[in-house]
Amino acid sequence: MLIDPERQARTLAALAASPHDVLICDSATEVLLLTGYWPVMGASIAVLSVDGALKVIVPEDEVELASRTSCAEIIPYQPAGLDTLNNPLQMLKEPLRSVMKALQAPKAKVGMQLENGVQPSSYAVSYQFRASLLELLRELQPQSHFASCDELLEQVKAVKTPRELGLIQKSCDVAAAGFNVAQSSIHPGMHETEIAAAIQGAFETTTQAEGLERSYGYFFCMSGPNSAKAAAAYARTRRRVVEEGDLVMIHANTCADGYWTDLTRTYTAGRPSQKQNDIRIAIDAARAAGLSAIHPRATGHEVDRAARDVMKSHGFGSEFKHAAGHGVGFAAANPNGRPRIHPLSPDVLEAGMTFNLEPAAYFEGYGGMRHCNVIAVTSDGAKVMTDF
Amino acid sequence: MLIDPERQARTLAALAASPHDVLICDSATEVLLLTGYWPVMGASIAVLSVDGALKVIVPEDEVELASRTSCAEIIPYQPAGLDTLNNPLQMLKEPLRSVMKALQAPKAKVGMQLENGVQPSSYAVSYQFRASLLELLRELQPQSHFASCDELLEQVKAVKTPRELGLIQKSCDVAAAGFNVAQSSIHPGMHETEIAAAIQGAFETTTQAEGLERSYGYFFCMSGPNSAKAAAAYARTRRRVVEEGDLVMIHANTCADGYWTDLTRTYTAGRPSQKQNDIRIAIDAARAAGLSAIHPRATGHEVDRAARDVMKSHGFGSEFKHAAGHGVGFAAANPNGRPRIHPLSPDVLEAGMTFNLEPAAYFEGYGGMRHCNVIAVTSDGAKVMTDF
Repeated sequence: MLIDPERQARTLAALAASPHDVLICDSATEVLLLTGYWPVMGASIAVLSVDGALKVIVPEDEVELASRTSCAEIIPYQPAGLDTLNNPLQMLKEPLRSVMKALQAPKAKVGMQLENGVQPSSYAVSYQFRASLLELLRELQPQSHFASCDELLEQVKAVKTPRELGLIQKSCDVAAAGFNVAQSSIHPGMHETEIAAAIQGAFETTTQAEGLERSYGYFFCMSGPNSAKAAAAYARTRRRVVEEGDLVMIHANTCADGYWTDLTRTYTAGRPSQKQNDIRIAIDAARAAGLSAIHPRATGHEVDRAARDVMKSHGFGSEFKHAAGHGVGFAAANPNGRPRIHPLSPDVLEAGMTFNLEPAAYFEGYGGMRHCNVIAVTSDGAKVMTDF
Repeated sequence: MLIDPERQARTLAALAASPHDVLICDSATEVLLLTGYWPVMGASIAVLSVDGALKVIVPEDEVELASRTSCAEIIPYQPAGLDTLNNPLQMLKEPLRSVMKALQAPKAKVGMQLENGVQPSSYAVSYQFRASLLELLRELQPQSHFASCDELLEQVKAVKTPRELGLIQKSCDVAAAGFNVAQSSIHPGMHETEIAAAIQGAFETTTQAEGLERSYGYFFCMSGPNSAKAAAAYARTRRRVVEEGDLVMIHANTCADGYWTDLTRTYTAGRPSQKQNDIRIAIDAARAAGLSAIHPRATGHEVDRAARDVMKSHGFGSEFKHAAGHGVGFAAANPNGRPRIHPLSPDVLEAGMTFNLEPAAYFEGYGGMRHCNVIAVTSDGAKVMTDF
């Protein structure tokens, strides 16, 4: 039994309705999804069979962590050691063989992660099996059929259980500890690096993280013209010195035990200009409109349009350069995370979905403003999980 | 032409001596190796042909970064955008088709990253193509033969060019800014999280990082019994309160523009005990013995044995639980990074190789001590790149 029986029931129902008999996942996020345990090094393999059997092959130095967070059957292995130069895949061969043998399903239809995807960082480095895990499984199960289960996983990840919503809320609360000191950390004359470090430090030392196994994340500071570049898929802190009147954007991706936030606030160093006030009024209105459009059965493109129409009516349509949001929680910053809040998105909202809502405007050479919250869809609307 | 002609020459020579006609790399580290540009999101594809043609397909929002750090021909693409819900692989299809067409080699033998490996984090999230890039290339080049070039890449990465050695030295110098404040940041009564945050902050704000595109990394603090667990493949800061007399281990993996360090120092909170002094004397002697054993043509197992024999002679043989080192530079913490400084390693040292040397002793329930430096093999011995 998993710690989260609701998650187990949902995932098994999805597996039963799929063409697969077995799911085999190797990415840290999907091992978390299936087992409740978030691998550190990404060298763990979760195997879920349609009859409910759930096993996870775990590096010995992660067994303590795995057993505290998951009730899956844990099979330890040594990816590396003093007595071998083998790599983790070679060391996985025997444990994986015995797991597959126990299934007694040599002709099983196996679902695997074969497509491209975005994976949040679970550590400074992580293992990647690339095409090799599929090769090994073909050798171990020559009569099996292997197919992508990526779409199934995306759909299963999109709707969170009550327990998962609680963990994402916890993650948001820890992130808030950084943002609590953001305004007071920004002064003209400071380097972006200094501002980011001050906020990061407040996040890393907050007592909000008490009880978590692993809490970490990334705070970025982008000021003046650098903040205009935040329309990119990534954020980047530089050594620029903040000037009086600059827009200063603080962006964060933080995680608590594998549950991620995607958050942005924008401040002014000193007194805001009329132009900055105008942009902020537009973004506040776009956020309100987006929130109002969120309810079960609304589509992603409707929510995007609600926010985008407001930005257009304020004259900032072309400066709102990206989609209004994307799935967050298991994902940090994945434009394809479900539900996509995008002009073309057919994704239908359901209670329990979590995503970011990030109305923004970017002015090349001047600056950018973005306000990005984590939102949960409720039975009749939206809950702002980052209400600070 | 690459910015680093020496690197270009070496990689091309290795390619010419291999069974491959073309290398296609998608992992950020290997794109850095081939082009000099370190991707942020891991959605870039580098293509090097045996005739010397070098192209890199780059997300539009990374083109500025790529063009500042690489002279490869840059082909921009949009992995995501307002006018499509396609994923990056789908968006790569046309640019990749035109790159392959320009090669005029429909039957080319293509080397790709197909095996399992360790990849350092280039951002909070990164794209992973898993088995899908191979599938796409099979579709685009049905007459081509695809094979793993992972072993070739490991060997090419092992020996650094003078320019790369300079960049790794820079990375070490930036990391030193954190360790400079480590001793003074440790006081009984503090949480591990507070100590780690103070050191991390000094690292993030150092002027040593001036001139780098991207400088970031991870500092961990493990105290008392937690430091004994640092024999694991990963480090982990917890909220434990440091007590008088505790061993306090500070571990860091930091990077400067894609060149990584792997560094550890161990301190005592307060006055060291006789036992701690004994361990430190053993580790210092093991380090000296390891350094003395390093020279071109020495093998990895000889260097490991030199350090291990000293630990044994001091009575700490069984407490030195891991290999004496592994390749560092393109890798951060990869036990299979070349050269492996491991009891079984046949890897032969060459001038320009960089690795860590990490004699250590771990006492379950009490604490652990490790001293880990980044080392470069010189023409006649070893240079400690982290000589602080």
